[in-house]
Amino acid sequence: MPKLDICYSPELLPLYDLTGQVAVIVDILRASSTIVTALGEGVTHVFPVASLEECTAYGQQHGCLTAAERDGVPAVGFDLGNSPFGFLDAAFPVWGRALTISTTNGTAALRRSLAAEAVVVGSFLNLGAVAEFARQQGRDVLVVCAGWKGRFCLEDTVFGGALAELLADEFDVRSSDATLAALHLWQQSKADLAGYLLQSAHVRRLNSLEASQDFDFCLRIDAYADVLPIWKKDRLVLNQGQLVGS
Amino acid sequence: MPKLDICYSPELLPLYDLTGQVAVIVDILRASSTIVTALGEGVTHVFPVASLEECTAYGQQHGCLTAAERDGVPAVGFDLGNSPFGFLDAAFPVWGRALTISTTNGTAALRRSLAAEAVVVGSFLNLGAVAEFARQQGRDVLVVCAGWKGRFCLEDTVFGGALAELLADEFDVRSSDATLAALHLWQQSKADLAGYLLQSAHVRRLNSLEASQDFDFCLRIDAYADVLPIWKKDRLVLNQGQLVGS
Repeated sequence: MPKLDICYSPELLPLYDLTGQVAVIVDILRASSTIVTALGEGVTHVFPVASLEECTAYGQQHGCLTAAERDGVPAVGFDLGNSPFGFLDAAFPVWGRALTISTTNGTAALRRSLAAEAVVVGSFLNLGAVAEFARQQGRDVLVVCAGWKGRFCLEDTVFGGALAELLADEFDVRSSDATLAALHLWQQSKADLAGYLLQSAHVRRLNSLEASQDFDFCLRIDAYADVLPIWKKDRLVLNQGQLVGS
Repeated sequence: MPKLDICYSPELLPLYDLTGQVAVIVDILRASSTIVTALGEGVTHVFPVASLEECTAYGQQHGCLTAAERDGVPAVGFDLGNSPFGFLDAAFPVWGRALTISTTNGTAALRRSLAAEAVVVGSFLNLGAVAEFARQQGRDVLVVCAGWKGRFCLEDTVFGGALAELLADEFDVRSSDATLAALHLWQQSKADLAGYLLQSAHVRRLNSLEASQDFDFCLRIDAYADVLPIWKKDRLVLNQGQLVGS
């Protein structure tokens, strides 16, 4: 039976051997939710980059949209910030465009996980798609929480617990203490996920910076039930066989 | 109001600034429980060391008792393993002796935390003493979980939650997601702590290696209610003013 483990911080990745595994990159607030929204709204592919300089360079080189935030606020000089609503604005159509995105925590987590057999992006918005992909692969899964500047954060962990609950019949979710704890936190929170996560320091920080509409949006389970961003060569694209939404 | 934070793994310590803080080193199964028991049973001081070679060398140099385990089993060639019961055997009196101890996870966590203003050892056996010390100091507290080979473990985390609950009126226990999660896990588990922790992979590993008496013993809250091991120069001693048990 394949195993589902959870890595609470990119700083702990050196302790895990990703060879042959599926890595699920999670940065609920907000990089992974935003990337899922972008591909769900017709963006053709996403280049995640570490620095603002790279983001600018990719934008010029590939003629693509640029999105960047630092410490929770949009960075100056880019088309978009890190809010999923940037991709839902009828006045700013994104369909058919490519995107490059630089974020504080999510991009770093993704780039450190490329040793895995498959690297996908997970969020509550596409929880079911991630679970279905894991079932199809039948490989060990490592949920990589982006965290907050390397530290544990509640919303990414609770997502790991939600995924573990969905996969509990087909995956070993009991031999890792990190997975057990995440499962317990998810079971404690799922009846009122928003209320539960509003306790989080990180969530309160976000609320003080932007309207809470981002927060509510990022918790909509399976709002993009068919969208699975997967890493191919140098970019995130919709998993093969998936149709681009229109 | 001082803050109580929890570091889930020694590998994450570089993210924290321990300057001016109280570090509480926790390795419930079993190094910190064993050190509390040793000092509670009249051991005069403890030299925690990283390697088996150092342990042998300290033993010869200081004429003290030696205790060592690797991967949960007693190491060969030492007076004691890492079981608290080694210090409760009438046929092997430890009162008035010094001790050097090498353990897989606990010693490493302690040695990496020496930048703190005060370094103490915490376990369920001396939970109240740790809380009282934190109150007296009035400084920020970081609970440093030894974990299992650098990874998150449930029993150390739940201890952090128990300490946070005790200190919730005097300390900020809500601005760190790690502390919030630990509090929730503690609240979920405290009615049946042993039953809860028996789910843990690490606990099951311990059970397969030694009798479960160690496990039951390590969960006895405040069995050594007055014992606070504190780091002085190069060793752990009872906190000043405390009487050595007899």
